Amino acid sequence: MKKLIEFIPNFSVSREHDNETCEELIKVAESVKDCMLLDFQSDGNHNRSVITMIGTPEGIEEAAFLLCKKAAERIDLRKHTGEHPRMGATDVMPFVPLKGTDIGECVELSKRVAKRIWEELQIPSFLYEESCTREERRNLANCRKGQFEGMNEKLQLPEWAPDFGERKVHETAGITAIGARMPLIAFNVNLDTDDLQIAKKIAAAIRGSSGGFKYCKALGIPLEDRHIVQVSMNMVNYEKTPLYYPFEMIKTLAESYGVKVIESEIIGLTPAKAMLDCAAFYLKAHDFDCMEQVMEYRLLEGEE
Amino acid sequence: MKKLIEFIPNFSVSREHDNETCEELIKVAESVKDCMLLDFQSDGNHNRSVITMIGTPEGIEEAAFLLCKKAAERIDLRKHTGEHPRMGATDVMPFVPLKGTDIGECVELSKRVAKRIWEELQIPSFLYEESCTREERRNLANCRKGQFEGMNEKLQLPEWAPDFGERKVHETAGITAIGARMPLIAFNVNLDTDDLQIAKKIAAAIRGSSGGFKYCKALGIPLEDRHIVQVSMNMVNYEKTPLYYPFEMIKTLAESYGVKVIESEIIGLTPAKAMLDCAAFYLKAHDFDCMEQVMEYRLLEGEE
Repeated sequence: MKKLIEFIPNFSVSREHDNETCEELIKVAESVKDCMLLDFQSDGNHNRSVITMIGTPEGIEEAAFLLCKKAAERIDLRKHTGEHPRMGATDVMPFVPLKGTDIGECVELSKRVAKRIWEELQIPSFLYEESCTREERRNLANCRKGQFEGMNEKLQLPEWAPDFGERKVHETAGITAIGARMPLIAFNVNLDTDDLQIAKKIAAAIRGSSGGFKYCKALGIPLEDRHIVQVSMNMVNYEKTPLYYPFEMIKTLAESYGVKVIESEIIGLTPAKAMLDCAAFYLKAHDFDCMEQVMEYRLLEGEE
Repeated sequence: MKKLIEFIPNFSVSREHDNETCEELIKVAESVKDCMLLDFQSDGNHNRSVITMIGTPEGIEEAAFLLCKKAAERIDLRKHTGEHPRMGATDVMPFVPLKGTDIGECVELSKRVAKRIWEELQIPSFLYEESCTREERRNLANCRKGQFEGMNEKLQLPEWAPDFGERKVHETAGITAIGARMPLIAFNVNLDTDDLQIAKKIAAAIRGSSGGFKYCKALGIPLEDRHIVQVSMNMVNYEKTPLYYPFEMIKTLAESYGVKVIESEIIGLTPAKAMLDCAAFYLKAHDFDCMEQVMEYRLLEGEE
């Protein structure tokens, strides 16, 4: 069975501000052997682009280096503005085990990439998520705090030496967060009310950080054009916290406020299993075994 | 994108009665290029075995002929007993479009196989399901009526000439039904009652033949060892009649009798999409697009 890893690097650039650099990054992503570009998303307000690609561990390792190199050549963070917090031209590089591999292999891969971008490009890095060497670096937001402009000062703090590289950001390309994590699913639930407080209270109830589901991150936000509110979630381990946990909980909590769930949205890609587990739950198909009973899994298994 | 067809031939033999023939059939299924054996089920009471395999159209066409040949060499229907109705050593050969192909291509393939087994093996056949040349042959049960023992008499009737071959069964291998159909999902729902009449009434309400869902076949049966009853379904077109239609209807009908749904079962294989559609429905993810958003589909697309 061929091993497959997902790779979702974020770059501090957007089509609106510099379309040519976006095209160059896409070209690099498409050029690497045994990799496939699945998606390219660019946001002008955030001045940020996200590549989604999959490939063999070897292919993805090479693609990560080449993309980071291209971004360093073309992006000057000193001139970068945008709403999204950032600290590097390549801001963050997550590696996700998809098939025939595990989180440990992705951790090792992330460390090799971090070493190489320091040695060959002089870009320092923090290891985050499952690759982290200190617990306070697990969370990307902690690593990025201070952003590009405040990073050289932060790097002088005893506990904030980069995992690879010196205590000084690359002059134009900054510093990068690199790590392995489980697949993340962006899952939103829209509520039939314009009362933002209800969405915020429900989000607080369901997210792990305030006592809810361990692998659920959640925020209440307004959808102003539709005059409704949304519970916006990142599901960071769909195996341990399946999507139907927060969905059912949101339904119940909303009902207690006299509010209905209008719909949900899956944003971007999801592993099939996250949805198949929901189907089995709602159909009460308790003995359903995805790996054995879903035809497409058998097809994937059969690949060389 | 590689074309893939599923093939699920049924043979009038079982491990209990003739294990060696079962092993020989498995050997043939495993030997054909560009095919993969997914499953072999054998039932001693029915004295019947079912192979599930997938492969390219060319591979499956060859496998169909070779399996039919092997079954004809080894099975003598004159000596066959078993609870399941049957008319051939290879009793039925359905071809199912899976990926990169459609029902029309499977119909053409089924006709080539039917022609070849007549010309080279002198086994006549009826074309059934989507391959049928007369509407009354669409249903397998109609074709098989009279079974092996009554078939020579039936073949004399003006409307029952075989589609390929003479009006006379093969002396030991009988006659075979060959056709193309959509994937079939065996889907059962267990009810918390031992009243068989309730299962029968619900089955009658939901099945297409008596006014229910067009692509749902259903029977009410007892699960005697568990002292409960089951609505046992074949979903013959999950795109047009999704699994959650009968499931929700059964829940509602059962409730009207004061009965609860205990659980459901998917028996054997299902295309992922049948389950993904259920997940999207229950999560109210109305805009969910399987082909675009499910990672594994993207992987399958990427295959040569």
